[in-house]
Order: sequence, then structure tokens, then C-alpha cells
Amino acid sequence: MVTKMVKAELMEDKVIVEEQKDASRIYNKGFFGIYDGKLELNLVEACYLLDKGKFEVEKNGKKLDLKKFMEHSLSYIPDFEIKYFVYRDLRERGYVIKEGNDFVLYERGKKPPAKPSFTVKAISERAKFKIKEMAEFIEKAKNKLIVGVADEEGDLTYYIAKFFKLKGGLKERKYEGKIILLNDRCIVWDENLMEKLKEDFIGRDFGKYIQISLTETCYLAEKGAKIIKNGRKIGMKRFIQHAKKIQPDIENRFKVYSELRKLKLLPKTGFKFGSHFRVYSSEPEKSHAPYLIHVVGSDYEATWAEISRAVRLAHSVKKEMIFCMVDDEIKYIRLKRITP
Amino acid sequence: MVTKMVKAELMEDKVIVEEQKDASRIYNKGFFGIYDGKLELNLVEACYLLDKGKFEVEKNGKKLDLKKFMEHSLSYIPDFEIKYFVYRDLRERGYVIKEGNDFVLYERGKKPPAKPSFTVKAISERAKFKIKEMAEFIEKAKNKLIVGVADEEGDLTYYIAKFFKLKGGLKERKYEGKIILLNDRCIVWDENLMEKLKEDFIGRDFGKYIQISLTETCYLAEKGAKIIKNGRKIGMKRFIQHAKKIQPDIENRFKVYSELRKLKLLPKTGFKFGSHFRVYSSEPEKSHAPYLIHVVGSDYEATWAEISRAVRLAHSVKKEMIFCMVDDEIKYIRLKRITP
Repeated sequence: MVTKMVKAELMEDKVIVEEQKDASRIYNKGFFGIYDGKLELNLVEACYLLDKGKFEVEKNGKKLDLKKFMEHSLSYIPDFEIKYFVYRDLRERGYVIKEGNDFVLYERGKKPPAKPSFTVKAISERAKFKIKEMAEFIEKAKNKLIVGVADEEGDLTYYIAKFFKLKGGLKERKYEGKIILLNDRCIVWDENLMEKLKEDFIGRDFGKYIQISLTETCYLAEKGAKIIKNGRKIGMKRFIQHAKKIQPDIENRFKVYSELRKLKLLPKTGFKFGSHFRVYSSEPEKSHAPYLIHVVGSDYEATWAEISRAVRLAHSVKKEMIFCMVDDEIKYIRLKRITP
Repeated sequence: MVTKMVKAELMEDKVIVEEQKDASRIYNKGFFGIYDGKLELNLVEACYLLDKGKFEVEKNGKKLDLKKFMEHSLSYIPDFEIKYFVYRDLRERGYVIKEGNDFVLYERGKKPPAKPSFTVKAISERAKFKIKEMAEFIEKAKNKLIVGVADEEGDLTYYIAKFFKLKGGLKERKYEGKIILLNDRCIVWDENLMEKLKEDFIGRDFGKYIQISLTETCYLAEKGAKIIKNGRKIGMKRFIQHAKKIQPDIENRFKVYSELRKLKLLPKTGFKFGSHFRVYSSEPEKSHAPYLIHVVGSDYEATWAEISRAVRLAHSVKKEMIFCMVDDEIKYIRLKRITP
């Protein structure tokens, strides 16, 4: 017995399957398109079904092969191939994925008309990563966002992007004593203060003295310590003016440091991991830092390659990568690489 | 018996030990300073000996403590503390390190007057990484350069920076057939060409077609394949014009790709590792890619945090991190993190 090939008709940015039996069979197999007697598919869905040999597509009575169909689709949707890669990949992995404004994805075992589990953004590695835009995407997706990034070879990397809550178990307290500002770093020789700092894992022990970062200095000054430059006390405002020359984003870093401390967390430099802070939620001597935090302004942009590198490195040292966007308020955006 | 404390005199940017016995003993213990009857030390060396309690330093008959001595030194050498961290750390690890214009370091078991083993640059994490400057440093150090980067807390990360030679065992050949340019990527449907590309691990298999990157397209075109856009052949020049809009650094990437192929290596996208290429030296199916290559112009600058992240990530996936500077010629600069 020869099975008759299902026919579909291309109409600009839609593909229609008229024959009711075919239409309902295709719809029911994977919830493709919109079914109401006939089946209406968008170009991405139709491309997938064509690619899989589920039907033949005709336009004005002429058959289109996959190549022609893709060329046609690209003239309607500029980033068609990126969308198609992500759609195809997730379908091949057995997910039901449908198009709203963006894709929506159903967790395994779920299907329409249930509420979808995630919004999925298909992005080219060549697109810029913009932190503010990412925050808006997450907001729109109600904190349920998956980003699929297609590289040059069409290979995909997926991230869950979400607003993240951090909380630790480390207390704050007041400080007394002097901090000496030496050029671009600060040193504590004051024995009482040194002892407290050691207890609290602030700064780094250098035998006869403790070295603290500019951000830590801001914090300690806020909590009561005095900053001394050339033998004279200087105020917070002047210190920040000075520190800004060395570290232009000191104000943002200090804001984040300060808030993290209020959340009972302890930030230390994350330089070795290419980030601003590694963050401890309990005593550093007894535990490892579960978070890497990169402090950025709301105008922060990066290439997706940089983001990919940051997240991958964080995961390779068993940490979570969090971008901390400082705007009117501080937003913690966690990017986690996943295999769907 | 009470041992008499050794006396040293601070004279601007030098510290002198006059007493011959003391001078020769200190010199012989670790080859500190310049000895010719008396001992002349620079500020970094003297700071270390003062910190270790090897002598007392006086200036005009007044004793200076470590804090005062450091303040004095900073007024002579702006990045004194960075230099001191590196010097101190390497001394503590048991190395003989001396100051020329930069530090020079003797491998364990070696000592002056032998030739030192490495030049050592002490750098603050706040300094910018400039690729051209790095190339000059390596040249000056005759390919024997160690860079010590001090982070905010004074913690050190060391890299060996060197010009690196790559070589592989993969052959080149000619190609025939068509490559279809679809918007920002290229696709091969031509069965003969597809077969060759599969044999040669070029592009990525997508079932009915193979997707190739813009850089691979340049290469294949150079080797005889035709690029087709909207049904018409376009020349290399026009293709590069088009590709530049999508990937502004395509020319540099192609130059490097091309040279790597001549060196019998195979570059593929390194996006997942945050770099331009992962590079195979033998068949990708039988081996892993030993190198990550990032292609940069001679004006490339980055923060040391970014560099730290790139190198650390490369090492975490057992690859070497190579920055490829495209100038009149291509220079391969390998940065390798070490524990001295």
C-alpha cells in the first residue's frame, strides 16, 4: 500500500493543511499550529514538519523543497534560522513548544491547553547581551525564562534566566579603629580592629597588617571605622571621590556589598573567577562560596561569548553566576546553563 | 646573649647596610641587593627584610616602623605595594628574585651570577591588559615572562606569557560545489560537497544539509567552492563585505583560520568556551581540542578579570588559552596559569 503524501499550502507567512483528517492527526501528534477543522501553521512549525517529511508544501501549485521553503521564510522572519534551530532542537528533545510572541514550552508530560511552563527566547550568539533587556524579558516571562543561544555552527546553549533571592547566615556589627589609605589600597595596623576583621573574614592577613579592599573600606567606614590619609581622617565622601579614580564603579560595588551584608552574606573579591565578588553564605573557613556576583549598571552590554564564558566558569567551580544590576533598586539575575 | 639588631640607613630610594659583616651575611643568605663591602638595597628588598625583622631601618637617626617605611616607599614608587606583594610572595616561596628594570627570577637551585630564568612583571588587577604591550613584554623578556597579578586583597595569580608555536596533523584540500548564503549563515545542500565537509569535519550536520560559519565559508571559497546568494554566484570580496556587517572582525578571523589550516590544525567555533575558536590538531572525532584561540587586533584591551576568566575557563576544560594578535603578522600568545 502506498500512503498518500499529506499536502500543505504556503500562504505568505502561514502554511495551511486543509484536509481535516490530516490536519487533526498532525495537530494531535504534537500540538502543532492552530486547529479548527483545518490546520494553520506558522513558518517555523511548517519548516519542522517539512524537514521531518510529514507533508509536502506547495505554493500556487508548485512544490517547494526545504531549501526554497527556508529562503522564503527568511524573507518574512529575519532571524528565522535561529528560531528554527531552537524550535527544532527542543522538538527533537521531545518537548511541546509553541509560538506566542516568543516560544512557550511545556514541561514533559504537560500539553495545551494547560499553562506553558517556560517562555523561550531564541537568540543568536552574535546578538548583544543587554542586562536591562534581559531583566525585561524575565519580567515578561514571569520569572520563567529559557534562553537558547545558537552559535555559528547552529549548536545550542540553553540558560534559565531568573531573578534570584540570596540569603545567608552571617551577622553584621559595628567597628572602631583606623584604616590607613595607602595609594590604591587600604591597610589596617590597628590591633583591635585587626582582630575583629580576622573574626569576620574581612580583608586579607599580611602578617603584621591586614589589607582591605576599597569596597570593604567603604563598608567599615559606614560601620564606624576611621579612614586616615597622610595622618588625617578623611570622610566617606572624600574617600569615595578618591576611590572612584582607582575604581570607577566603586559606588555600585559598595551598594551591592552593603545590601549583601544586610542579607547576611559575605562578599570577597572574585577576581580569580573573573567576577567582582565571590559570596559566602556562611563562614568562609568552613564552607565554599556558592555565588559569583558581577556588579553592572543598567546600561551593561556584553557579547554572548563573554556571558557564556562567565557562566561556564562559575559552573566549573560549582558556583552560581549572578549578574547584579544596579538601577534604582538592585536586581539579582541568575543565569544557569541547562541541558533541556 | 642578646643579639645586637642590624642597622640599616634609609637614603631616599635606597637602604644601606654599612657594617661589613652584617652586609655580607644578608647578601649571602638570599642575594639581596648589591654588595661591595657595604650592602645597597632597593626599597622593595629593604621592605621585605624589615618585614621579616632582619634589621632596623633609621632615617636621620630616627627609627622607621614598617608602616612608615611603606608610606615613604609609596612616595617614590607609585605601585610599590604591588611590587612588594609579588616580591614577598616569591621570596616566601623560596625563590631568589632581584630587581633589574623588572624583577628577574632564578629557578630553584640557581642563583646569581648565573643568568636568571624569568623576567617577572608585577601588575595590579586594576591595570588594563593590552595585547600589544604584552607582546612587547614577552619580546623584551626573550619569551621567558612571568606575570604576577595582585587582586584587591593582595592575593596573587601568576601566568607564564609566551609566544607559542602550534602544529597539527590535518591536511588541506580543494573543494568544489555550492554554498548557499542565507542571511547571516551559510548552508550546503550540495551532496558531493556535503560528503567532503563531513570527511573534513567542517561545518555542522543538520540532517538534510550542513551549516557552515562565515569564516569556514571564506575558507571553502578560497579553496574553490562557490558562494550563491539569491541564486547568483558572489565573489569573495562581496561576500566579505556582506559578512562584515554580521561579524565585523571576519577578516581577522579568516586570516587566523587560514593560517591555522596551513599549520595543519582545524579551528571550529569556540563559542561555548567564550572564545572564537576551539582548535583540533587531529581528527575531532578521535581527540579533544587542545587549544582555545581568541582572535584580537593589536589594539585589543581587556580587564585582567576578563583575562583571568578566559584562562581559568580554558584550563578547567583542559585546553591552552591562546590570544592571537593579528597585526602585520599573526602572533600567538599563550597565557598559562601557574603556581610558582
